[in-house]
Amino acid sequence: MKILVAGGAGFIGSNLIDALLAEGHDIVCVDNFFIGTRENIAHLHGHPRFTFYEEDLTDLETLKGIFEKENFDYVCHMAANSDIQASAQNPSVEYKNTYSTTFCILECMRLYGVKRLFFCSTSAVYGDAQGEEVHENFAPLMPISYYGSCKLGSEALISAFSYMNDFHSLIFRFPNVIGPRLTHGVIFDFIRKLRKDPTRLTILGDGRQCKPYLHVNDLVECIMRFKDDVPQGVTLYNVGGTTQSTVTDIANIVCEEMGLKDVEFFYTGGRGGWKGDVPVFAYNLDKIHSTGWAASMTSNEAVAQTVRDVL
Amino acid sequence: MKILVAGGAGFIGSNLIDALLAEGHDIVCVDNFFIGTRENIAHLHGHPRFTFYEEDLTDLETLKGIFEKENFDYVCHMAANSDIQASAQNPSVEYKNTYSTTFCILECMRLYGVKRLFFCSTSAVYGDAQGEEVHENFAPLMPISYYGSCKLGSEALISAFSYMNDFHSLIFRFPNVIGPRLTHGVIFDFIRKLRKDPTRLTILGDGRQCKPYLHVNDLVECIMRFKDDVPQGVTLYNVGGTTQSTVTDIANIVCEEMGLKDVEFFYTGGRGGWKGDVPVFAYNLDKIHSTGWAASMTSNEAVAQTVRDVL
Repeated sequence: MKILVAGGAGFIGSNLIDALLAEGHDIVCVDNFFIGTRENIAHLHGHPRFTFYEEDLTDLETLKGIFEKENFDYVCHMAANSDIQASAQNPSVEYKNTYSTTFCILECMRLYGVKRLFFCSTSAVYGDAQGEEVHENFAPLMPISYYGSCKLGSEALISAFSYMNDFHSLIFRFPNVIGPRLTHGVIFDFIRKLRKDPTRLTILGDGRQCKPYLHVNDLVECIMRFKDDVPQGVTLYNVGGTTQSTVTDIANIVCEEMGLKDVEFFYTGGRGGWKGDVPVFAYNLDKIHSTGWAASMTSNEAVAQTVRDVL
Repeated sequence: MKILVAGGAGFIGSNLIDALLAEGHDIVCVDNFFIGTRENIAHLHGHPRFTFYEEDLTDLETLKGIFEKENFDYVCHMAANSDIQASAQNPSVEYKNTYSTTFCILECMRLYGVKRLFFCSTSAVYGDAQGEEVHENFAPLMPISYYGSCKLGSEALISAFSYMNDFHSLIFRFPNVIGPRLTHGVIFDFIRKLRKDPTRLTILGDGRQCKPYLHVNDLVECIMRFKDDVPQGVTLYNVGGTTQSTVTDIANIVCEEMGLKDVEFFYTGGRGGWKGDVPVFAYNLDKIHSTGWAASMTSNEAVAQTVRDVL
């Protein structure tokens, strides 16, 4: 298939491209390097089945030109501002990079008759469920971050476009994804801080924020398994693991993988690390598990593997 | 209070302005006449507590200037493309007029410290619930129209902005609203068709599409009653009546109010009138009823009153 990977120079997108190329597909990547990087796709330079456009996906006229020229069979929409903490001070970043990218992609799919979509959604659409195990039909959906709200708005767009244009759309809502090419988040912060000062580590919050971390290899394997057999309309899954890691778990694993001993931890205190963060989160995964899929790594294993991946 | 009524030259907005002025408030209306009209606010010309800006709410820099100058206490966001049928061919209309207006208004509220919001949402966020009585926590929310999807996206934005900036936000999800200054929809279509040919009427669908219609006077009275006492965060109500009207009911009422007899009805057939229309819809109103509020007119009474309002 000829597949558009929108945001393919990003962390998850570039990992997905590797898997799609390995399966024999022709890949067209569009990215503006807002959060993606040239390094993430440097190894694909010269690959005969890889084409790259450095363009802004919210430039609708340019995107139309790419759709016109490339004649896609499938779209994987991985473009978003994934740095929730950064956009907390500037919601326009989410409006543009997370929501408007979705609108422009869907509008091009409508205009150029592309019917098949994979979309990266997020646990952030659930807001702060106060630790309740959220299943796909949890309600009300009250996102507390601009990122989560623009992802929920994107899902709503996909719902209407899919109905109106007979799309086959697959949406995964996943939690924190980690692994090679990760560029931000708590693991990355801890490594950076410990490289600077290997004797002490400042930890935002009380260290008990507790969330599931999913290794990108597990996520990509799940996308590859489900992407082809999507019925008309919207099919939506929570995708993650059943285990979780506290921030203190992560600190301990990072120290261990870096070979550091007797690091002093300093906690800033409070329930959440920063406003818009969901401090405690648990998924109900019955729907995806009923298909036979399960994550291969626990949350702590994914953290440890990621530290090894990025060190 | 000084209140911004965004989209105040529209059907519902202009009716709300009349009520707010009667209660003694200072009103600033911003409208670009995309769907609102000069006629709707012509009677307010020269009113000492009414100010009008002919501006596009999605022009963020201009809107910032208005917020800077006017120092609002409260925002009523009534701006949207309310003609769902029209936008079915051009989703950009909803992206701009229904979603982006919301983003720009919320961003200005954040930047200028305005904490109180009323937002018009819609039963269209529920999608096609196949006649199930939908309560506020119905899930999943799978809108089938671009309009419904941009309203749901707007609600998601309000959720995040309210959390991040301590807004007090009131959201009403209401069904078809009708009454004086109505500019489109089935009643308007039937009157127009019958004026042209009072002997026959073509009806989209099988005539059994069945929905609740709410008179704008009931809606405005409800907004006025609830607008002041909103706790921090998002408060959301379904607002409507318990009765419904079929399209054939509406045809009969329009003929009767127009004094026409023996009009022949021709049905185009099919379940829905047009793609993106939700043919059968019923609200669960327990939450709003528990406050003591109820609509004063039945759905058929609202239709009859509207025909008298607009004839």
